[in-house]
Amino acid sequence: MPTYHIEMMEGRTLEQKKQLVEAITRVSVEVLGGSPESVDILITDVKRENWATGGVLWSEKK
Amino acid sequence: MPTYHIEMMEGRTLEQKKQLVEAITRVSVEVLGGSPESVDILITDVKRENWATGGVLWSEKK
Amino acid sequence: MPTYHIEMMEGRTLEQKKQLVEAITRVSVEVLGGSPESVDILITDVKRENWATGGVLWSEKK
Amino acid sequence: MPTYHIEMMEGRTLEQKKQLVEAITRVSVEVLGGSPESVDILITDVKRENWATGGVLWSEKK
Amino acid sequence: MPTYHIEMMEGRTLEQKKQLVEAITRVSVEVLGGSPESVDILITDVKRENWATGGVLWSEKK
Amino acid sequence: MPTYHIEMMEGRTLEQKKQLVEAITRVSVEVLGGSPESVDILITDVKRENWATGGVLWSEKK
Repeated sequence: MPTYHIEMMEGRTLEQKKQLVEAITRVSVEVLGGSPESVDILITDVKRENWATGGVLWSEKK
Repeated sequence: MPTYHIEMMEGRTLEQKKQLVEAITRVSVEVLGGSPESVDILITDVKRENWATGGVLWSEKK
Repeated sequence: MPTYHIEMMEGRTLEQKKQLVEAITRVSVEVLGGSPESVDILITDVKRENWATGGVLWSEKK
Repeated sequence: MPTYHIEMMEGRTLEQKKQLVEAITRVSVEVLGGSPESVDILITDVKRENWATGGVLWSEKK
Repeated sequence: MPTYHIEMMEGRTLEQKKQLVEAITRVSVEVLGGSPESVDILITDVKRENWATGGVLWSEKK
Repeated sequence: MPTYHIEMMEGRTLEQKKQLVEAITRVSVEVLGGSPESVDILITDVKRENWATGGVLWSEKK
């Protein structure tokens, strides 16, 4: 039942997403127990123009 | 003032979204009180490659 | 698989929450299809000092 | 370390986003302290067909 | 209609929250337009044992 | 910069949280690259009366 939301900069490959959800699910079950089927993971691909750190959008950083 | 966020797999029609927000708003007002105008609903259409259950992305499930 | 997050002002009774999740799940299945078991709903009880509208916290509104 | 999520109707310009994250970061540091670099802001551009108020999607409002 | 969610470490005073939501609402209206009444802000006070950076919970950092 | 939000039923120990954020950070860096310091993880402990599956709150399930 644990539900993971992952926000990351856009541009990751499908292969990376596959590996990531497999690994997150594995460690989640190892630490928290429960079945893999109870783990949901939702990924948000964030555009560089929609994420700012230090007051500057990542699309504008040099 | 209740605010609903709905995450669902992409592919639902505009007609389904219209019916869903109408129905959610109705039952929200019935149970919680308040006016329909105080109910906000935000929908997120999630791509199959961005949702995993059991460690497998839905885009990869057979 | 649709996942609902509901943010509402704290103070609702357990009975209201029971009715609300039952009703939301029912209309969700009616409009989107799928089984009731695939519907997850998470409620956040928000304190009045943690919600502002118009620049004023609800705990401070007269 | 404060993290801001901003949901707003799609259509805002890059210039508005730049100004907004600069201003939010500035007031955040003024009120909460900490360094600008510790402030993260994530923007979600919401389509009019994915936001409802009063039970009606904004794409359907006259 | 813009909706802000702010996650910050617990321990901020009511006075800081009042100043923060006033300032966020003001800059939001200046940059995006709309009325102050259309701006909603929700604050989440996060416990130090529920926020990690670099793989370490803030409650465990020396 | 990836940011993880984990919603899980309340009751997990501090030890489990420590192990979980360590492991999530490790696999995140392995798959996505970047430094551990760029990984933020926020945990939400959800009360059983605030999570429903199949239209029934977990506090009410037999």
